[in-house]
Amino acid sequence: MKLLRFGPPGLEKPGLLDAQGRIRDLSAHVDDIAGATLLPDGLDGLRAIDPESLPLVPGEPRLGACVGRIGKMVCIGLNFSDHAAETGMAVPPEPIIFMKATSAIVGPNDPIELPRGSEKTDWEVELAFVIGKTAKYVSEDDAMDHVAGYCIVNDVSERSFQIERQGQWTKGKSCDSFGPTGPWLVTRDEIEDPQALKMWLDVNGHRQQDGSSATMVYGVRYLVSYLSRFMTLHPGDIVSTGTPPGVGMGKKPQVFLKAGDVVELGIEGLGSQRQSVVQG
Amino acid sequence: MKLLRFGPPGLEKPGLLDAQGRIRDLSAHVDDIAGATLLPDGLDGLRAIDPESLPLVPGEPRLGACVGRIGKMVCIGLNFSDHAAETGMAVPPEPIIFMKATSAIVGPNDPIELPRGSEKTDWEVELAFVIGKTAKYVSEDDAMDHVAGYCIVNDVSERSFQIERQGQWTKGKSCDSFGPTGPWLVTRDEIEDPQALKMWLDVNGHRQQDGSSATMVYGVRYLVSYLSRFMTLHPGDIVSTGTPPGVGMGKKPQVFLKAGDVVELGIEGLGSQRQSVVQG
Repeated sequence: MKLLRFGPPGLEKPGLLDAQGRIRDLSAHVDDIAGATLLPDGLDGLRAIDPESLPLVPGEPRLGACVGRIGKMVCIGLNFSDHAAETGMAVPPEPIIFMKATSAIVGPNDPIELPRGSEKTDWEVELAFVIGKTAKYVSEDDAMDHVAGYCIVNDVSERSFQIERQGQWTKGKSCDSFGPTGPWLVTRDEIEDPQALKMWLDVNGHRQQDGSSATMVYGVRYLVSYLSRFMTLHPGDIVSTGTPPGVGMGKKPQVFLKAGDVVELGIEGLGSQRQSVVQG
Repeated sequence: MKLLRFGPPGLEKPGLLDAQGRIRDLSAHVDDIAGATLLPDGLDGLRAIDPESLPLVPGEPRLGACVGRIGKMVCIGLNFSDHAAETGMAVPPEPIIFMKATSAIVGPNDPIELPRGSEKTDWEVELAFVIGKTAKYVSEDDAMDHVAGYCIVNDVSERSFQIERQGQWTKGKSCDSFGPTGPWLVTRDEIEDPQALKMWLDVNGHRQQDGSSATMVYGVRYLVSYLSRFMTLHPGDIVSTGTPPGVGMGKKPQVFLKAGDVVELGIEGLGSQRQSVVQG
């Protein structure tokens, strides 16, 4: 299934994409794509519904982030061998984790807002997974049972705030609009191998990132288990697994986003996002 | 007012402490101490209620974190000149910020759970402020209008996870139970000067931290304004402002928590917390 949320910010309704790519309204069945709806039983309940029986949503509504009431967004740093190389940093001997404030999360096609004073706002196409079952001290063998599905996250990053403004990357990762998430939560059964997905990102129609989750250092299975040793992962938490090469910081000379730019990004099987860049 | 939440984990009800120190049940008036209840109008609504008219809560119920549905917990690092000195680090030229996962937040007297493999779990008594009005690009002059009130946070920290396990402090700050919060949200009108509050923490009855918010480098007013340049602060977000000297990492030799220890901490005007340490 491809689950989504449609409607104005803060008033999104749950929906799903039918076989013809049309949005169907799920709000008679669940209150949101969030919390208990993401549990195995919750997803099975949605699978039992005939999409044709659901109301068609007219027009092309705005999409919100594909998961609601996200408890935390954990991000993995320097998790692609080829991206680590372009930033001049070593592949870490164990995963680097940081948090993105949930207030940064927006819909997949909402504008990216340049924070005031920003000169180094950058892009990062990332494969994210969504937790579907509480995970605490979970083994790698059991890890995948805790994943509801996958989605795209653009881990937008202000490099000056992140690196040059005193320790801890959060400062450059948590600005409003820095977490476009969606368009869909694609359930796990639809993705045969999360470690073999093409990933791409264009700025103004020029390809900047052209990679694959195959070069990910620490894969989804490992990350679920690893993170669950440090904190409980709850249904609706999102983990964004890092970016392949081609970020603006890694270019020579460096290139960053400016108002008027258009960013488009996608991952095989997970759809695509499109953001206009505006001055905040 | 001293606002609080009482009852079993996940089922807390809103309450307030009356002039005699007894808990009164607010659940006929508000659903939670959270979100819109924290707005200036929401707090004025609670002020208009005669506490004597509210049901007395019998017994001594468990207290939950004093704020519900916390969107994010932002923490400030190395924000006391005397604490920076004990850790051997310089006072940063601008605030260091990091996030604590909201899944780490517990009641003020809930146990501290040592994560498996932890050998360096440490304590940090901190003054936290609670946002009561959305703050984005707010000036220092206007900053205090955005603060609903204050509470205690024990910013429990696993130093090995934080510092020795690959960058970004989040890993040692976000373990389950690492954010005891409360006992009360004390509204801003009751605290004349947040930069002149005594702060203390005992382990097994021995004083370990004995400081004051007077040695805070970046004060509450500045932090509201500063943070609001990087991300929007929403009602119910909590900012924990750093710790005075006396953490276990700063002792010679270093001292860390072990199962069976009892941690007690308090801040002038904000009450106190008491946690037993257990193995996770």
